Amino acid sequence: VPLLECVPNISEGRRQEVLAKLARAAARPGVRLLDFTSDPDHNRSVLTLAGEPEALEAALLALYAVAVAEIDLRCHEGVHPRVGAVDVVPFVPLADSTMADAVAAAQRLAAAVGTRFALPVYLYEQAASTAPRARRTLPQIRRGGFEGFAAKMAEPGWAPDFGPSHVHPSAGVTVIGARFFLIAFNVLLDSTDAVAARSIAKAVRESAGGLPAVRALGVWLASRGRTQVSINLLDYRRTSLRAVVERVREEAARRGIDVVETELVGLMPEDAAMQVVSETLALPRFASGRLLERRLADVDPA
Amino acid sequence: VPLLECVPNISEGRRQEVLAKLARAAARPGVRLLDFTSDPDHNRSVLTLAGEPEALEAALLALYAVAVAEIDLRCHEGVHPRVGAVDVVPFVPLADSTMADAVAAAQRLAAAVGTRFALPVYLYEQAASTAPRARRTLPQIRRGGFEGFAAKMAEPGWAPDFGPSHVHPSAGVTVIGARFFLIAFNVLLDSTDAVAARSIAKAVRESAGGLPAVRALGVWLASRGRTQVSINLLDYRRTSLRAVVERVREEAARRGIDVVETELVGLMPEDAAMQVVSETLALPRFASGRLLERRLADVDPA
Repeated sequence: VPLLECVPNISEGRRQEVLAKLARAAARPGVRLLDFTSDPDHNRSVLTLAGEPEALEAALLALYAVAVAEIDLRCHEGVHPRVGAVDVVPFVPLADSTMADAVAAAQRLAAAVGTRFALPVYLYEQAASTAPRARRTLPQIRRGGFEGFAAKMAEPGWAPDFGPSHVHPSAGVTVIGARFFLIAFNVLLDSTDAVAARSIAKAVRESAGGLPAVRALGVWLASRGRTQVSINLLDYRRTSLRAVVERVREEAARRGIDVVETELVGLMPEDAAMQVVSETLALPRFASGRLLERRLADVDPA
Repeated sequence: VPLLECVPNISEGRRQEVLAKLARAAARPGVRLLDFTSDPDHNRSVLTLAGEPEALEAALLALYAVAVAEIDLRCHEGVHPRVGAVDVVPFVPLADSTMADAVAAAQRLAAAVGTRFALPVYLYEQAASTAPRARRTLPQIRRGGFEGFAAKMAEPGWAPDFGPSHVHPSAGVTVIGARFFLIAFNVLLDSTDAVAARSIAKAVRESAGGLPAVRALGVWLASRGRTQVSINLLDYRRTSLRAVVERVREEAARRGIDVVETELVGLMPEDAAMQVVSETLALPRFASGRLLERRLADVDPA
C-alpha cells in the first residue's frame, strides 16, 4: 500500500483550543503528524501528515469535521487568501507511491467531503486533469476569496466538482488535489512598508515575469510589526530555494530593505536542502549520500 | 561498545592495484568502508571507516601492512605534504562514543603499529594531550616532510611516542590521533597560476591570520591543468563551510580568478550541511528534523 503525504491548510492560526482539536483529529491510527505550523497573522495552520490512503482519508474527514464546526469564515481575518475553513488539501506522492495514487486519494476524499459536509469541492492541479475540465491552479480557484465565491460559482465553468452548488455559509468551499512537493516559506523584511513588500513579491513571482515555479505575496504582520514575503515554491527543480531567497534579497536591497530571516512552513524535501548546499559550495552532484550520518545509516556492516 | 570513525590518509593515489588492496584490507568484519577518495595529483587516498575499536584496529593493522609493503616514499611524488606511507590516522567519536574512546583507540593502535611495523609513531591532537608532552598539531609534525624527518627526529623533544627512534627507510613515520570531525575539501580554480593559488590559500588559513579552524594549501594539479586550494576545516562550528568557500571566492576574485567547483574529500557531518542551508537561506535553527524524509524516518506511526 503506497504511503502518501497530505498537507491540509486550515484557516485557523490563533485559537489554541481549536489548534489542539485539529491536531487530535489528525492523529489517527496509521497517520503520522509530521509537522504542525501555525501563524497568527496568516491565521492559518499547515499540517504535514503521512500515511496510507485509507488512514489519511479517515484523518482528513475528522479534520474537516473539527474545522467546519469551529471555523466561521464570516468573522475570520488573516493576511493569507482563503476560500474555505479547510482551505486546501494537497496529496503528494512519497518515495513508494505515484502521482496516480495521490490523484486517486484526492478524488476519493473530494467525493466523501462533498457528501458528508455539504461543502462544494474543487479539484486542482494533477487531480483536476480529467477531461474535459481544464486543470485548475490554486490561484485561479482562490481569486475573489471566500467573500467573492458565491458570485464566482454562478459563472460558467465554476460549478464545483463535488458537493452542493452553493457556498457553505460558514465554511466556504474546499480545494483538494494532488501535486509535487511544494516548499512554503516566508521571508521576514526589516520594514513596515507593505507597498514595498507587495512590490518585492510581484518582482519574484512567475505570474508577473519573475522566477519559474514561484508564487509570492507581500503581507503585513501586525503581531511582529514587520512585512513579509510569503512564498510557495512549486518545484525546486525549476528554481532552487537559494535562487528564490537571493532574488528576494536583491529586490529588497534595491528598495533599501534588509531581509531579517526566513521561516519554513512545514517541511522541505531532503533533495531541496542538498541542492542549496551544492549551489552554495559549488559542489556538483552533492547528495545526502555524502553526509556521514546518512552513509552510516545506509551501509550494512561488512 | 562505542562506534568510532577512523579516516586513514594513505600516500598512494595512483596505482589502481594498490588502491584495490588497500580497500580489501580495510573491509574486515565489523568495519564499514563508508568512503574511499583518491587523488592522482595529491597521490593520496582518504578512507572513511566506521566500526568498534577492536574491529577498526584489525582493519588498520591490515592497511598498514599493505601500505608499508607497497609504498616507498623515496620514489613518491605528490602535491600533498606527507611524512609516511600511512601518513595520518585520526579517530573521531561518533554519536554514541566519546573523545576518550577515540583517544584510547588511537593510543592502542599507536603501540601496536610501533611494535609490529618498526614505524616511529607520533600522537597528535587529543591523543597527544598527556602531560608532559605538549599537544602536537599535524602541521608541526609534518613540517620538513618525509625527506627532512631524520634530522627533525634528532632534535630535542622529537623522539616518537612509539616505535623505533629512526625513520623507516621506505614508509617514513606515521601520525595517529583523535580529533573532532574535520571536513576536507578542495576548491578548483580556473587558473594555472600556482603563485596565486598559494597566495589565496595563505589569505584564508588561520595560521596566517585568516579564518579560524582553517588550513589551506595552494597546489598545481598537473592532471587537470589547473590550480587548487586544498582545505582542511578543523571545526565547522568555528567557521562554516559556506564562509570558507565565500572567502576563497573573494580572494580568488581579487586576483581575477574564478572558482570552477569544489570537491569533498570523504564525507561531511550532516550538521555542517544543515548549517550551509541555514546560513544561505537565513533560516535560523534549521536542522535535519525539518527534512521530510528524516521526519518520516524518525517518527513512529501513531
